[in-house]
Amino acid sequence: MHKGFLITFEGGEGCGKSSQIKLFTKFLEENKIDYVLSREPGGAEFGEMIRKILLFSKNNIDAKTEFLLFSSSRADHIKNIVKPALREGKVVVLDRFYDSSFAYQGYAGSLDLKDIKLITDFAIDGCVPDLTILLDISYEDGFARKSQDENLKNLDRIERKGKEYHDKVRKGYLELAKNEPERIKVIDATKSREEISNEIKNIFLEKYNKIKN
Amino acid sequence: MHKGFLITFEGGEGCGKSSQIKLFTKFLEENKIDYVLSREPGGAEFGEMIRKILLFSKNNIDAKTEFLLFSSSRADHIKNIVKPALREGKVVVLDRFYDSSFAYQGYAGSLDLKDIKLITDFAIDGCVPDLTILLDISYEDGFARKSQDENLKNLDRIERKGKEYHDKVRKGYLELAKNEPERIKVIDATKSREEISNEIKNIFLEKYNKIKN
Repeated sequence: MHKGFLITFEGGEGCGKSSQIKLFTKFLEENKIDYVLSREPGGAEFGEMIRKILLFSKNNIDAKTEFLLFSSSRADHIKNIVKPALREGKVVVLDRFYDSSFAYQGYAGSLDLKDIKLITDFAIDGCVPDLTILLDISYEDGFARKSQDENLKNLDRIERKGKEYHDKVRKGYLELAKNEPERIKVIDATKSREEISNEIKNIFLEKYNKIKN
Repeated sequence: MHKGFLITFEGGEGCGKSSQIKLFTKFLEENKIDYVLSREPGGAEFGEMIRKILLFSKNNIDAKTEFLLFSSSRADHIKNIVKPALREGKVVVLDRFYDSSFAYQGYAGSLDLKDIKLITDFAIDGCVPDLTILLDISYEDGFARKSQDENLKNLDRIERKGKEYHDKVRKGYLELAKNEPERIKVIDATKSREEISNEIKNIFLEKYNKIKN
């Protein structure tokens, strides 16, 4: 289909996603591989407007309304950011993509997985990741990591959601990985930063070289 | 399901929808039937924000993105305006509803009818109209009426879209009516204002009394 490569990073709170994305894009730079790093809702003015509505509506917006709104920004992001970069042969690195919708709004939320799938298929227009890195971590380990790294405000937000919620997110992610083992690679996020980073690079290179050659 | 009654008005440009809605709500008032008149994107702050984005993005937004955005406001409108009014037993009068999406974005636009159906089913959450009045008019007759009623700016907009587009909209509407003859009642919009208004009242009363008794 496209000449580029779409890699997405997924995982629950405290899984170390941000650090790993930094290490991975550094690796791409060092190897002179052209890339675009993005996240939803992204893009210029349209994404910015959606972001404002989502922030404004937080906690008083219906789950369906929110998911449709988010899916709209997803369709825009794919059409105007992801696909153009892939067409130019770039590696597109996304900090979360539709697996997050399944995990958070589906497995841990109130929406039907079937509905999420139908609307996602419509929104992404065939844009399935070539590789998804799932940084798997338990609620306890993720929480312990967060409490070292971040301020109390963030801790509050995690605590509010609670263990039960985060367990559902994790279980959902692992279920998705079980259903698509070729696309979604599960990495034990309790390993050291360097170990994880090396694992990601190796998985990426294997897939990337296959597609590029 | 609900105790109220949902009636929607549909039709192409120049079909006389606005006048007929005025006459119909006047009739409801005279008969002391509680009603709510609304249209999408409706509601308070959320609908207002979506309306701004739609206006801002006009002509440079992808059809899928726009439809998902509109569906989000549709879900919000149903949850916060339509359903509460129906639960209170009111008649809800909508100036256009999802049949417009099928006619304009589907039959005359670029979206698959199947996709529109899937996403609409998700957004409306079971809220199917008890009665839909389709004011049927040809491009030529609608155009002639518009040119009597409105200013040149509006004429320009209609002319831009052209006869072919409006013919597709009309054909789409009639196809929808053929598939759901019990819900969608087609009225010849070239008849006199009074004739049409009486027809609408009669169709409404027949259905309304059946549901209420």
